[in-house]
Amino acid sequence: MKNYKLTISYDGSRYFGWEHQPDKDTIQGKLEAVLCRMCDEDIEVIGAGRTDAGVHAKAMVANVRMDTKFTPEEIRDYMNRYLPDDIAVQEVHEASERFHARYKATGKLYCYTCFDGEVKPVFRRKYVTVLDGRVDVDKMRRAASCLVGEHDFKSFCSNPQMKKSTVRIVDSIDIQRKKDYIYLNFHGTGFLQNMVRILVGTLLEVGYGRIAPEQLVQILDAKDRKLAGPTAPPEGLCLERVDY
Amino acid sequence: MKNYKLTISYDGSRYFGWEHQPDKDTIQGKLEAVLCRMCDEDIEVIGAGRTDAGVHAKAMVANVRMDTKFTPEEIRDYMNRYLPDDIAVQEVHEASERFHARYKATGKLYCYTCFDGEVKPVFRRKYVTVLDGRVDVDKMRRAASCLVGEHDFKSFCSNPQMKKSTVRIVDSIDIQRKKDYIYLNFHGTGFLQNMVRILVGTLLEVGYGRIAPEQLVQILDAKDRKLAGPTAPPEGLCLERVDY
Repeated sequence: MKNYKLTISYDGSRYFGWEHQPDKDTIQGKLEAVLCRMCDEDIEVIGAGRTDAGVHAKAMVANVRMDTKFTPEEIRDYMNRYLPDDIAVQEVHEASERFHARYKATGKLYCYTCFDGEVKPVFRRKYVTVLDGRVDVDKMRRAASCLVGEHDFKSFCSNPQMKKSTVRIVDSIDIQRKKDYIYLNFHGTGFLQNMVRILVGTLLEVGYGRIAPEQLVQILDAKDRKLAGPTAPPEGLCLERVDY
Repeated sequence: MKNYKLTISYDGSRYFGWEHQPDKDTIQGKLEAVLCRMCDEDIEVIGAGRTDAGVHAKAMVANVRMDTKFTPEEIRDYMNRYLPDDIAVQEVHEASERFHARYKATGKLYCYTCFDGEVKPVFRRKYVTVLDGRVDVDKMRRAASCLVGEHDFKSFCSNPQMKKSTVRIVDSIDIQRKKDYIYLNFHGTGFLQNMVRILVGTLLEVGYGRIAPEQLVQILDAKDRKLAGPTAPPEGLCLERVDY
């Protein structure tokens, strides 16, 4: 039995997220179906995390333990032959026996893309969130600076029954405007359920002028989901990289 | 009655081309339906050209004669509110009475995008043509240089019954590779039916090594469609600009 590290891209538009669910199209489900066909037995694909319905990934990492006579490159080509064209395996490498895509991940980079121009983008429409109006990126950056570091992000977690710690470290939040596109990059050791999208939803409220940048400190301190902004839509979000 | 110049972007993937056809989704049909709703009368949208089924445009130009109290910006916003999200009106300007999108066009720029890497692209999959193998771009450039200038392009026209002249001027063919993507830019005064796609299909044959670059001279001279390469698929083609 060997352990393989897979790097996977997907357009999450038509999927019910990463995690397999009966009778629903999911990324994990599609990957496992192809590997099950290849190996003629049930195979579990362990992802670095679970992306929500509609969220994309340029480089999700997963690991798979299986017996196969195929080389890593042959595994990649076999999978790409049978996967739908909105999922692609970029790389397959043999990994050490102890490699675990979730437990061994040390960091993740997410990018959230917004558009606030006057004419909706046609070619990137599935990968950007179209905003209701112009946002002030300087204000958003000031607000973001309050969020960087180790904090209890309970206000930014969609699961109110979360039993485990809601403390996380956000290493950096980088916000760039290029013409009508705004790119929000979040790097951290790990993120709570919907955390990136709630952070984006809150930063956009700041960008619109409805929340002052300094209020972020109180929103964090309150540990109350109701004080943060709405959960931004999934289509703008993409998992860019997983660090090990 | 005023004359308006419209600049339009569209993702042609799900359309039966530009030109309206009964009971089929076409770009012209969608535009005319929205303008008909706006003006409460039949409106004809005159395009700079007719793109084939599946072909995209970043900046198709059209003109429309109509009576409306809306400003150009209001026309644009009205149209974008009712158009599907794979068609967008970028700009609307009032034009001189004599402006005609087709007759007054002096040049067109098309870009054809190919991919010859090992893993199919996920996010750009609808806008690139995935090749069967690696192509030699230097050879393609040498072949392209034979095509630039004023020639009878009968060998590159899909309509064998073409009564009018098949002489056209191709000002430039620029071919660039960026990693696994190959961009073929064609600028000319006008193109015959399927001409860009047949040129691309032929240049790809050169890239694969099945046709020698020098043979392009004979293929042109023969004025015989059978000697040129296959018609490249529509998804890689995009109308980038129309000059006036």
